[in-house]
Amino acid sequence: MLDICLLGTGGMMPLPYRWLTSMMARCGGSSLLIDCGEGTQVALKEKGWSPKPIDIICFTHYHADHISGLPGLLLTMGNAERTEPVVLMGPKGLERVVTALRCIAPELPFELRFAELEEGQQQFHIGPYVIDAYRVNHNVLCYGYCISIPRAGRFDMERAKKQSVPMKAWSRLQKGETVEIGGICYTPDMVLGPERKGLKVTYCTDTRPVPVIGEYAKDADLFICEGMYGEDGKEVKAREYKHMTMYEAAQLACKAQPGEMWLTHYSPSLTHPEEYMDKVRKIFPQAKAARDGWTVSLTFEEEEENPTG
Amino acid sequence: MLDICLLGTGGMMPLPYRWLTSMMARCGGSSLLIDCGEGTQVALKEKGWSPKPIDIICFTHYHADHISGLPGLLLTMGNAERTEPVVLMGPKGLERVVTALRCIAPELPFELRFAELEEGQQQFHIGPYVIDAYRVNHNVLCYGYCISIPRAGRFDMERAKKQSVPMKAWSRLQKGETVEIGGICYTPDMVLGPERKGLKVTYCTDTRPVPVIGEYAKDADLFICEGMYGEDGKEVKAREYKHMTMYEAAQLACKAQPGEMWLTHYSPSLTHPEEYMDKVRKIFPQAKAARDGWTVSLTFEEEEENPTG
Repeated sequence: MLDICLLGTGGMMPLPYRWLTSMMARCGGSSLLIDCGEGTQVALKEKGWSPKPIDIICFTHYHADHISGLPGLLLTMGNAERTEPVVLMGPKGLERVVTALRCIAPELPFELRFAELEEGQQQFHIGPYVIDAYRVNHNVLCYGYCISIPRAGRFDMERAKKQSVPMKAWSRLQKGETVEIGGICYTPDMVLGPERKGLKVTYCTDTRPVPVIGEYAKDADLFICEGMYGEDGKEVKAREYKHMTMYEAAQLACKAQPGEMWLTHYSPSLTHPEEYMDKVRKIFPQAKAARDGWTVSLTFEEEEENPTG
Repeated sequence: MLDICLLGTGGMMPLPYRWLTSMMARCGGSSLLIDCGEGTQVALKEKGWSPKPIDIICFTHYHADHISGLPGLLLTMGNAERTEPVVLMGPKGLERVVTALRCIAPELPFELRFAELEEGQQQFHIGPYVIDAYRVNHNVLCYGYCISIPRAGRFDMERAKKQSVPMKAWSRLQKGETVEIGGICYTPDMVLGPERKGLKVTYCTDTRPVPVIGEYAKDADLFICEGMYGEDGKEVKAREYKHMTMYEAAQLACKAQPGEMWLTHYSPSLTHPEEYMDKVRKIFPQAKAARDGWTVSLTFEEEEENPTG
């Protein structure tokens, strides 16, 4: 199961009743946060989700509204007596920016490990997560993230037998372990069928609509995307400041066909995002104007009965 | 008139419904802020007070809960099209800390001017404010602030006549201007009686109770003071972390006799500060457990009719 919470839906500055855009994922006791603006730790507290198990914090970029809450969050995690290392991931400059911000949070009871992105697209396996970072197009270096929980294939008894895998190894192999018996090494692929559809959430804010976003949003269960403007005539502003209108986001989704799209990162001037949704849903019917604290629990899809057994 | 708003009353971390401790003063179109934690700009917005006219930001010290909101506030002031310089005041290290934090807010349409405190007690005259900074006793270098609006003496016609001040200069002299007529320079003191009681607010958080606080709280209209703990047995923790209990704050107030004392900077564990107030008010009856957003407008006291006319 993968829990997703969109902690805030604002862009630029935190407002009363609208936190800055940030997303938290929970899976198997490990949490992952994307962006941490001023007030993100309060949004988490309101939601009742603990900051202590946050093992990974991914940053899209280093504009203040996406990272200014980091020192406070780290201190709060320290106060909660976290001692395990935390991985910070983000564009070039990560360690420099975090070190500068830590002048007001110099002492932490846990280690920070830096994963600075160097390529246009990079994949990481951390805990239960497969994290794909992909470069987008903002006025500073900026990345989107695709968070996946892969799902192994079904146990395939025929295949296990054909490869002469001893029965006593089956259970551990099915759980993904490698097993050695009598000098022979058995691997999970020897007893498993093809990988099944996992869970996938794609996230991007602060970018023009570029094709790579669509590639990662393809077949995602949830696509969380910036929809900074909805009013007529704001396309010019979106282009100038390298943001996206709700309609541009919907066009990306229309091509990529994710299960659902949540719009976020609203301009402070956009007080009622729902007003524009009729027009947005004409482009992509599964679009929703998200609100702070929206949550979904994604589960692996039910399987058909295996016709052969 | 001097408007005071205690924007938040929390210590350590911002909480849902409790912002971090910060105070704003407004006088004659110029605003002054003391401390700016994560979320202070949201507290301001909730209050409906504009951040644009903030001419001075005073920092008590550089723990994150007192300064982490600075980059966001400065950007928001910039977005409000402020162009006038802003004075930042604080303990040694001010420019270093602010420069580090500005790695996420590098571009501002106004200048920052630094007033780094170098002595145990220092006085500044900025706009309508007389600002007294006084060193207190925390686990890092920390200052309290006393904000005063002085009030000139009454116009004294006898005095003006005795000193042969031409009548046409009276009005301007009364307003505080210096006037030259026929090569003679006339100054306001030539037409004014002794200075009258002004307005005075004294502020301190994050300190043990030290005598200097009492000196500045003496005769203050309002004394805003840390009361981090109220529960029995927390004196030890207060001493260890160099904070104050509500009772220690009340003892300071009892000696200094300000018009009123507002307690603030509550520990996150202290959810109902009112519970301890009966005991606190036995020490200082004009003590109040402040809440976020408390406001007062202080005005010069009404004068008795001048008996001589």
